[in-house]
Amino acid sequence: MKEKTLRALRETSEEYLSGEGLSNLLGVSRTAVWKAVQSLREEGYDIISQARRGYRLNKIPDLLLPAEIRWGLGTRWLGHQIHYHDTLSSTNILAKELARQGAAEGTLVVTEEQKEGRGRRGRTWYSPRGEGVLFSFILRPALQPTHAPQLTFMAAVAVAETLRREYDLPAGIKWPNDIYIGDRKVAGILTELSAEVDGINFVAMGIGVNVNTRLDSFSPSLRARVTSLLQEKGHPIARVLLLQRLLYSLEREYTALSQEGFAPLRRRWLELDLVLGKKVRIIAPERSFTGRAVNVDEYGALLVQEQEGKGGMRRVLAGDVSLR
Amino acid sequence: MKEKTLRALRETSEEYLSGEGLSNLLGVSRTAVWKAVQSLREEGYDIISQARRGYRLNKIPDLLLPAEIRWGLGTRWLGHQIHYHDTLSSTNILAKELARQGAAEGTLVVTEEQKEGRGRRGRTWYSPRGEGVLFSFILRPALQPTHAPQLTFMAAVAVAETLRREYDLPAGIKWPNDIYIGDRKVAGILTELSAEVDGINFVAMGIGVNVNTRLDSFSPSLRARVTSLLQEKGHPIARVLLLQRLLYSLEREYTALSQEGFAPLRRRWLELDLVLGKKVRIIAPERSFTGRAVNVDEYGALLVQEQEGKGGMRRVLAGDVSLR
Repeated sequence: MKEKTLRALRETSEEYLSGEGLSNLLGVSRTAVWKAVQSLREEGYDIISQARRGYRLNKIPDLLLPAEIRWGLGTRWLGHQIHYHDTLSSTNILAKELARQGAAEGTLVVTEEQKEGRGRRGRTWYSPRGEGVLFSFILRPALQPTHAPQLTFMAAVAVAETLRREYDLPAGIKWPNDIYIGDRKVAGILTELSAEVDGINFVAMGIGVNVNTRLDSFSPSLRARVTSLLQEKGHPIARVLLLQRLLYSLEREYTALSQEGFAPLRRRWLELDLVLGKKVRIIAPERSFTGRAVNVDEYGALLVQEQEGKGGMRRVLAGDVSLR
Repeated sequence: MKEKTLRALRETSEEYLSGEGLSNLLGVSRTAVWKAVQSLREEGYDIISQARRGYRLNKIPDLLLPAEIRWGLGTRWLGHQIHYHDTLSSTNILAKELARQGAAEGTLVVTEEQKEGRGRRGRTWYSPRGEGVLFSFILRPALQPTHAPQLTFMAAVAVAETLRREYDLPAGIKWPNDIYIGDRKVAGILTELSAEVDGINFVAMGIGVNVNTRLDSFSPSLRARVTSLLQEKGHPIARVLLLQRLLYSLEREYTALSQEGFAPLRRRWLELDLVLGKKVRIIAPERSFTGRAVNVDEYGALLVQEQEGKGGMRRVLAGDVSLR
C-alpha cells in the first residue's frame, strides 16, 4: 500500500493528487491513504498536504530505500528482493544469514551504515553514514568452489566499467578485489562463500563504494590512499541511481560469465587491470617476495615472475599486492 | 558435579561408594550427591543404591554421552568441547552454526539420530537411531579454499586406517569421500566450508560410520551396497571407543597435514585407494564420460584418461565415480 501510494504520487501529472483521487485509484479508504502517507513521511519522504487540493510529493529522501531502488531498476532478478536496514553490523553478515535460510539468488541487502564493515581477510571497511553505497547480494552459481575467484573478477569488471561508462571516471582494478582511480581506492569487493568441497551452497558478495564521502571523513592515515565519486567529480552523486546501474551491470556480467565462461570476462578484466607488467611486492600468508606481475590464470591467481631468477614463476592465490 | 560423581563411581576400587564417602570426596552435601546420581540416572546410567552400602555404577548406557567420550580420550584438542544431542537435524548443521558463533577448532557435535542426515551434494545419509557413530567437528585450517579437498583426504585416511588397524577390516577409500569394505560403503565424509576467496573461515567436517547397524535396517535398494562393523565383525562394537579412536586418528592426521603438507598424506591415501587403475564412469555436473582413473593431483582432483583418445586426460573435481 505504501509503495503503491508512493508510485501514484510519483506518476501523477497533476501538482496535487486529492485524497479522494488516491483512495479511488488504489481502491482503499481515505484513512488507509492517510496512513500510507504518514508511514512514507516517517521513512523520510517529504509529502505536502493542502486542504482541498490533496497530497504532493515534494522531496525524496537521500536514502537507499527499497521503493527507490526498485523504481526504474532494469534488472531481471538481481535486487528484486531487498532487505534494507538503516544500520547493520555488515551487509555480508545479513546476506549470509538470509542465504542460509534459503533466500533466493539475487536477494539484495542494503544499508546506510555498517557497524562492522569489513574488507578482505577481516580488515575494516569504513564508510561514513549515508555517504557510501554499501550492499551485498546472494548468488547461487553452478561453479566449483575453486572457480569462486572468477566472481570477484566479475564484480570488479562490473563496478569499474560502470564508473567509466556512466561517470566518465578512469577506474581500474587492482588485483584481486579493489577498484582504484589513479592511486586511490574508490571501491572494494568482498566475496564470501559457503561450499561443500565440490559445490557452492551460496555466495555472499559485498560491494562498498565511496560515493558522497568527503576525504576528511577518513582517518589521516587513509586520506592519501582513498577517494570518492564526490571528490573525483566535484559534485554529489545520486546514490540510488548508482546502485541501480551497478546492479544492472552485475546481473549482466554474471549472466555472461554463466553462459560464456571466464575467457571473455578475463580479457575485459585485463584491459582494466592496474597491476600486470608492473614491479610488485607480494605480501602473502606463506611468504613475501618481489617480482613482476605477468598474468592471471583461469582460477584468478596472479602469476608473478620472481626477479632474482630464483623461484621462476609464482602463482599467488592470496595476499596483498603493492606496486613498487 | 554430575561428571565428577560419575568419575568417582568409575574410579572406586570398592564395590559400593557410600553417600558420605562421595560427599567428602567431592566436597558437597549428600543432597547434592543424590541429585547428581538422579541426573546421571536420567541420562541412562544404571546406578544401584543400597542402604548402608551406598552407590554402585552398574551399567553405562550405550550412548555417545560427553562424559563417556571424554573418559580416556587421548586427543590434545579435538573433542574437548562436546555438544551432544539425542536427536539433531544434522551434526554438520549445528557445527556450522556453532562455528559462526565463534566455537573453537576441535569443537565436536555428536548425536544418536539425525532427522536430516546428509551426504555430499544434498544426498540423504540414513543411520538408524543409536546404531551409528555420527559426528561433526570444527576446523579452522590455514589452508586456501582451493586446498580444502585435502581435508576430505585427511579424514578418509584417518577413518580407513582406524578400521584397518583397530578392527582388522580391509577398509579402502573410494574417491572422493567414501570408505568401503569390499564393494559396500561403511562410512562417509562431508566437508563443508565457509570461506572468503582467499581464506577459510571454518570447516565443518561430518563423519558417519555404520557401526551396529543391521542390514535389514536399510531400505532394500541400499542393502546390497552398504555394510556395518556389526555385519563385518559379527558382533556389536563399542561406539564410544570407536569414536575416541577416530578422534585420535583425525587429530594426528590433521596435525601432520598442517606441518608436513599434502605429499605424505597423498602417498598413504594412494595405498588405500580403490579407484586408481580401474575403468570408471564419471557422472559429473558438466558431462559424464568413461575412462581410466590414473591419479589424484595436489588439489584432490581425480585425473581420468578418457578411453577413446578424444579428450586425453581429464581433471575431475566433482562428480560421482562408478567402477565398471
